[in-house]
Amino acid sequence: MLPEAISVLENSEPAIRHESLLADCAAGPVSTAVAEIFAAAARPGMISLAGGNPDLSFLPMPELGKSTDAIVANQGQQALQYGAGQGTEELRIQICELMALEGIIGASPGNVAVTIGSQSALDTVTKILCNPGDTILTDDATYMGALGTFAGYQADVQPVRTDDDGLIPEELQLRIVSLRNAGKHIKFLYIIPNFNNPSGITLAGNRRNRVVEICREANIFVVEDNPYGLLRFGGENLPALRACYPLDVIYLGSFSKIFAPGLRIGWALLPPHLVQKFLILGGSSTLCPPALSQMLVSAYLRDYDWQAHLSVAVGSYRQRRDAMLTALAACMPPGVTWTRPDGGFFIWLTLPPSIDTQALVHRAFDANVAFFHGAAFLPRAGRSNQLRLAFSAVPAGMIEVGIQRLSRVISAAVDTTF
Amino acid sequence: MLPEAISVLENSEPAIRHESLLADCAAGPVSTAVAEIFAAAARPGMISLAGGNPDLSFLPMPELGKSTDAIVANQGQQALQYGAGQGTEELRIQICELMALEGIIGASPGNVAVTIGSQSALDTVTKILCNPGDTILTDDATYMGALGTFAGYQADVQPVRTDDDGLIPEELQLRIVSLRNAGKHIKFLYIIPNFNNPSGITLAGNRRNRVVEICREANIFVVEDNPYGLLRFGGENLPALRACYPLDVIYLGSFSKIFAPGLRIGWALLPPHLVQKFLILGGSSTLCPPALSQMLVSAYLRDYDWQAHLSVAVGSYRQRRDAMLTALAACMPPGVTWTRPDGGFFIWLTLPPSIDTQALVHRAFDANVAFFHGAAFLPRAGRSNQLRLAFSAVPAGMIEVGIQRLSRVISAAVDTTF
Repeated sequence: MLPEAISVLENSEPAIRHESLLADCAAGPVSTAVAEIFAAAARPGMISLAGGNPDLSFLPMPELGKSTDAIVANQGQQALQYGAGQGTEELRIQICELMALEGIIGASPGNVAVTIGSQSALDTVTKILCNPGDTILTDDATYMGALGTFAGYQADVQPVRTDDDGLIPEELQLRIVSLRNAGKHIKFLYIIPNFNNPSGITLAGNRRNRVVEICREANIFVVEDNPYGLLRFGGENLPALRACYPLDVIYLGSFSKIFAPGLRIGWALLPPHLVQKFLILGGSSTLCPPALSQMLVSAYLRDYDWQAHLSVAVGSYRQRRDAMLTALAACMPPGVTWTRPDGGFFIWLTLPPSIDTQALVHRAFDANVAFFHGAAFLPRAGRSNQLRLAFSAVPAGMIEVGIQRLSRVISAAVDTTF
Repeated sequence: MLPEAISVLENSEPAIRHESLLADCAAGPVSTAVAEIFAAAARPGMISLAGGNPDLSFLPMPELGKSTDAIVANQGQQALQYGAGQGTEELRIQICELMALEGIIGASPGNVAVTIGSQSALDTVTKILCNPGDTILTDDATYMGALGTFAGYQADVQPVRTDDDGLIPEELQLRIVSLRNAGKHIKFLYIIPNFNNPSGITLAGNRRNRVVEICREANIFVVEDNPYGLLRFGGENLPALRACYPLDVIYLGSFSKIFAPGLRIGWALLPPHLVQKFLILGGSSTLCPPALSQMLVSAYLRDYDWQAHLSVAVGSYRQRRDAMLTALAACMPPGVTWTRPDGGFFIWLTLPPSIDTQALVHRAFDANVAFFHGAAFLPRAGRSNQLRLAFSAVPAGMIEVGIQRLSRVISAAVDTTF
């Protein structure tokens, strides 16, 4: 229903009259494909392997309620008032301690900016670095929310080829040269090194410093988005790209996957010479992060055994990933392959090249299962024979049923194609 | 200390190496004048007439603590989880009821988007309407946070002359013609019709529809920012500009002044044909508004006699305004004039034309009183003989002392000048 309703609006008299008032990023019809999938995923009976929601069932809600009560009752004048645009000092100190778990040692709270999730951190980074037409490099498939941010600033997004070990350094090098030869102004590489969204792939340890060195030599920032780093359930811990490169990597973190996305608290760790620009231009988007949310995150990190809660959640995510891998192996027809992530929320399926997964979205709705088609994660418009499955928010038993439903849709498509 | 520290950073080797990576909006040194004033205003002993914080002493904190406890304990899976980018339906329905108090009758919750304060609503409006270089019209002095937003999108901001009744319609008309003749692409008029920040001036009733009609005929949006409308303590209520013009006015509202800015909840009421574009491009900045904050606002509107709390607060603001007007009349030297607002948070002082109020900022710090110099509110860089005083956050007795201190600084400057 949604697309019809919108096309009516977009042809209304005021819509036509106002067409000349739109920025280039908002001109033309907007795609409602993502909104449509989220809406369908919420229908009764649907098994949603679409959205990457964290599982919050492990949070001690009654205790968190009491903590929130205490914050508002005893510190309400602070919790409900405007606060510093950079965020509270207590939280920024805690964030520096947290980042040490990712190999970032000795970061200064003065270089941390608390943001509205890491999404608004990415928005501000893009704002301070990109004029319209400037180029951003990404993995060959990447977080669709980042692509939305980049589109809002009319950036030119260019994918770099990846394999099972993540971004290929040699490809990065070649791509920089060829884009520069084509007159492109490259501003940064956006990369999710741990359990990439959508692919689940992790950038290999022996590629990490190499990737940053290539960008550094080419004078290009690296923007490292690491929401899933602490959600590892296999393989060895790898240090963040930022660990050895405080001046060349902008690091984005988030409490959305390790605590509570509804509080909308993330952060950026910035090279010192970018801090003031980030704060002033970021403040113009959101003024300051919510004080109540910040104080609840601080209380959670300070007063709770949050690492114990997290390890329970990680155990559950591991179990769900295993359930999905098992079901995929049992159900999928020949010609379908998938990634085996060591952490995070997502598995990435590759179907035979002749199949456009966007065409399967509605057939899957009819079979009561939802996923995101690969094209949603492509930096350049195009068709995709890949799709993303999220295992984070669905109990193992339902994952099995969901994969059975999906396999029938995919099998039918494969049969029709051959 | 701050400016020195920054100039060191801005001349560091990495800062120079990375200069070519900055967007135009972030190129060159950023002004830290505003941050410096906020920092100084927080010093012990300082009477701050600078920041426009609401007075939260009238909020029933223990009860709000209990409400928050109940939300997290009983609905934590919703309060701490991702939510719809548009905001909860309950809150959007309540917002429509609230807007009826401003003369906006029958607004549809489907056309409301909940945002991170009205600041992020303005950010998204600017994003969807302005390419770099596009023109935005404003009052001759306007909210500095809006100017920051517009700068982030590299917009060209052009002031329109105002008098004691607000924006002058004839001037608006002339300005549109002359800017168009100069080849400018005008996208919208940004206006704070009630108790303008910084001037405290209200757009007169007989000018309201005229202003919208002029913009409508010229095919320019009106962006009406109305955070203070319910904080009236004198004069008659005036309907919002949006009331009669659902297709041509984008209305921005906020709970920051009537409830709690620390929750960061505001909204936009949009013409229907802009809703999807707003949601998709706004979502790329912040993903979704904080669920816990939204649920607490909903509880406050639903379970509390919020209008009673508000009228106590408004009574206090009236008393503070009166205290400030009385003290100004008692202390200020000849040649200084000021506005007499019927509501809101601010009084706007005009000094003799020879005085640059920015030069008084540090002298006032030395006298332990803080204010914002007029140049911070100017759409075009320049000097100003005006300054803004906020009476909202300071008890009446302290306002009197603050004005005495300020009057000595101003008197000395007037004496030196003549």
